[in-house]
Amino acid sequence: MRMVDIIAKKRDGHALTKEEIEFFIKGYTNGEIPDYQASSLAMAIFFQDMNDEERANLTMAMVESGDQIDLSAIEGVKVDKHSTGGVGDTTTLVLGPLVAALDIPVAKMSGRGLGHTGGTIDKLEAVEGFHVEISEEDFVKIVNEDKLAVIGQTGNLTPADKKLYALRDVTGTVNSIPLIASSIMSKKIAAGADAICLDVKTGAGAFMKTEEDAEQLAHAMVKIGNNVGRNTMAIISDMSQPLGFAIGNALEVKEAIETLRGEGPEDLTELVLTLGSQMVVLAGKAESLDEARTKLQEVIDNGKALEKFKTFLANQGGDASVVDDVTKLPQAEYVIEVPAKASGVVSKIVADEIGVASMLLGAGRATKEDVIDLAVGLMLRKKVGDKVEAGESLVTIYANRDNVEDVMNKIYDNIEIADSAEAPVLIHKVITE
Amino acid sequence: MRMVDIIAKKRDGHALTKEEIEFFIKGYTNGEIPDYQASSLAMAIFFQDMNDEERANLTMAMVESGDQIDLSAIEGVKVDKHSTGGVGDTTTLVLGPLVAALDIPVAKMSGRGLGHTGGTIDKLEAVEGFHVEISEEDFVKIVNEDKLAVIGQTGNLTPADKKLYALRDVTGTVNSIPLIASSIMSKKIAAGADAICLDVKTGAGAFMKTEEDAEQLAHAMVKIGNNVGRNTMAIISDMSQPLGFAIGNALEVKEAIETLRGEGPEDLTELVLTLGSQMVVLAGKAESLDEARTKLQEVIDNGKALEKFKTFLANQGGDASVVDDVTKLPQAEYVIEVPAKASGVVSKIVADEIGVASMLLGAGRATKEDVIDLAVGLMLRKKVGDKVEAGESLVTIYANRDNVEDVMNKIYDNIEIADSAEAPVLIHKVITE
Repeated sequence: MRMVDIIAKKRDGHALTKEEIEFFIKGYTNGEIPDYQASSLAMAIFFQDMNDEERANLTMAMVESGDQIDLSAIEGVKVDKHSTGGVGDTTTLVLGPLVAALDIPVAKMSGRGLGHTGGTIDKLEAVEGFHVEISEEDFVKIVNEDKLAVIGQTGNLTPADKKLYALRDVTGTVNSIPLIASSIMSKKIAAGADAICLDVKTGAGAFMKTEEDAEQLAHAMVKIGNNVGRNTMAIISDMSQPLGFAIGNALEVKEAIETLRGEGPEDLTELVLTLGSQMVVLAGKAESLDEARTKLQEVIDNGKALEKFKTFLANQGGDASVVDDVTKLPQAEYVIEVPAKASGVVSKIVADEIGVASMLLGAGRATKEDVIDLAVGLMLRKKVGDKVEAGESLVTIYANRDNVEDVMNKIYDNIEIADSAEAPVLIHKVITE
Repeated sequence: MRMVDIIAKKRDGHALTKEEIEFFIKGYTNGEIPDYQASSLAMAIFFQDMNDEERANLTMAMVESGDQIDLSAIEGVKVDKHSTGGVGDTTTLVLGPLVAALDIPVAKMSGRGLGHTGGTIDKLEAVEGFHVEISEEDFVKIVNEDKLAVIGQTGNLTPADKKLYALRDVTGTVNSIPLIASSIMSKKIAAGADAICLDVKTGAGAFMKTEEDAEQLAHAMVKIGNNVGRNTMAIISDMSQPLGFAIGNALEVKEAIETLRGEGPEDLTELVLTLGSQMVVLAGKAESLDEARTKLQEVIDNGKALEKFKTFLANQGGDASVVDDVTKLPQAEYVIEVPAKASGVVSKIVADEIGVASMLLGAGRATKEDVIDLAVGLMLRKKVGDKVEAGESLVTIYANRDNVEDVMNKIYDNIEIADSAEAPVLIHKVITE
């Protein structure tokens, strides 16, 4: 088998066999196939696409390129959730305890990563004492007993994907549905998921800017999951404006607590109930999405979800009392309001640019070396469709510096006020097969 | 400027600017742009093509990536000929003296290269004493005096093209009209051509297997030439069967001599008259192709073309007496006939496979290190459309080994005899603008 023939085959629109895909992924991972052939194939895939079988084979070849986490010691169906990423996305912090409260095991491997705010682990570290340095043995034990634990990335998972992703990033081949879908799915499967629930964001703050692209990607991932024996569901959700109100690490933990208490922002609450329902069904704990939703609402209403969050924090060394006293979370030195310059209705909050404003404060990382300030961030006081009077606060800035002119300018530039506007639809689509 | 943006721009179907193309070619030549970005761009070009302006800019960027031969000391319009390559193509050996006999300067830079037979220089070295180790000063002097000289590749011509071609070869991006056309044209222009005449072959033995592809390539090259101020013409000629009868180095020199004498194979003669006419017009020595052809026929008939060949050989140390006594050329030890197994009409002679048969004898190089045997090769005794009786010779093998079963098998496998067949049309198209 020669790589150049595989490239030419794909270039000419033919489907690659399982053997050809494995030859490529193995060879590329071990360095026998050079970057310049991989990038050429990626571009050919960009133009010629891959059929369902190729996508499933590519995904599994990448899964098999490195370590695979064995979660078999954990009882029950391990359902993992994945979001394609957005701004102010506090979902994971809420979903974990919510679903675990229904006795569904959530064995979460999470990262720090780069972005507008920290990753899930960074956010949780806003709770004093919380850490993810637990042994795999303890991880399994905690999940079996209390259904929820989070650890950092361990092992050499999907090295083929890591290498290919870095290459795609500099060769104009990121935006290819089969490559994006197999990349995401391979990581979830290698991390041990039995079933997968996907939140594909669409809008200005999302990777997929159009609903059509988001839907294509969602269908592609659901199909891959189901074709490789992992039940998978997805939703398409709005990311034209940030989700919830909080953008920042401690601020999002506070928002998560409020949401678990039933007092969270409407959109965040709706999103976690929608995604949570899919997770409950995938875990086999409900027959229908409606039944699942009722059960989730119950554990919010009766306090079990919030209680689960406390147990979870305590199990990993965290000070669970923050749940009852959020002032124990890191506090910013300066709290500055951003008053509306005109009256009207908020018509636009450009999600990714507002994310950049929070980065300017130090809430996220631009490079791996950056240190996150857990206390800082933004709280939206208005969302799209809300009425606002001139002088009323649009956003509250939580900062550890007194001059925040750059942040204010960024906010003013990216929030528009018009005569009228409607709130965007949050859940664009639910994809269950 | 970032290479990844240039790749994405082309991927999305936009035209690249002159500056972007130069950025790519300069960066790739000096190693700042890595192979994996160049291959990705090449694949994007494969799918999205390039417009006329991009093609011209790419060609000139490659010309400017290295040395350029300055032929300004040679008087007259320097017309260069290029063939896309075939089997048994003796054209250059004939065209040089033929055109030079009309006082048109032919300052030929030629190579050895890999292939079924040697390059032009290898073939000429079948004449005892002939060599291309002449100074540039002598080269210019000879051309000014006698209108014809050949030297080997000098200088670092089109390094961008060399690097890109090697990359395309292993990344499935060879078959792209803008990339092939700019590659060929950049080499001719860097070698100092004022005007260019192109012989684009089509058929089994050619790089362009279909007439449609060949025509596309020819038009692309003519357009590039004219857009960058080099008058260019082209023909599409048949390479479904080998050209002429001889395939081998000394054998082709002998055939060239016969052709210059007016006694060559019909197809080779027709081809050199067609190409030669274009060269004469491009050099400004005739108003029309018809007028040019008449003049060329004259110098064949009056012996001036053959005389020019003798002068040319002698000028570069060669024993010109071979022209009058071809037995002075290297002779093979064994001459073996390949008798037809059936009677009928020759319906197929698969050009590239017959070329392989000649390589098996040692007439060509598979790797740079191979040593060519100048004496060996094949003489076709029948061509497509010729009647043949069982037992009559199809091909004469000239070998320096007595067991040529492998060569015979190759020949039998690739010459077909049917009840009826017609000779293929030689000149498919003449493209003058």
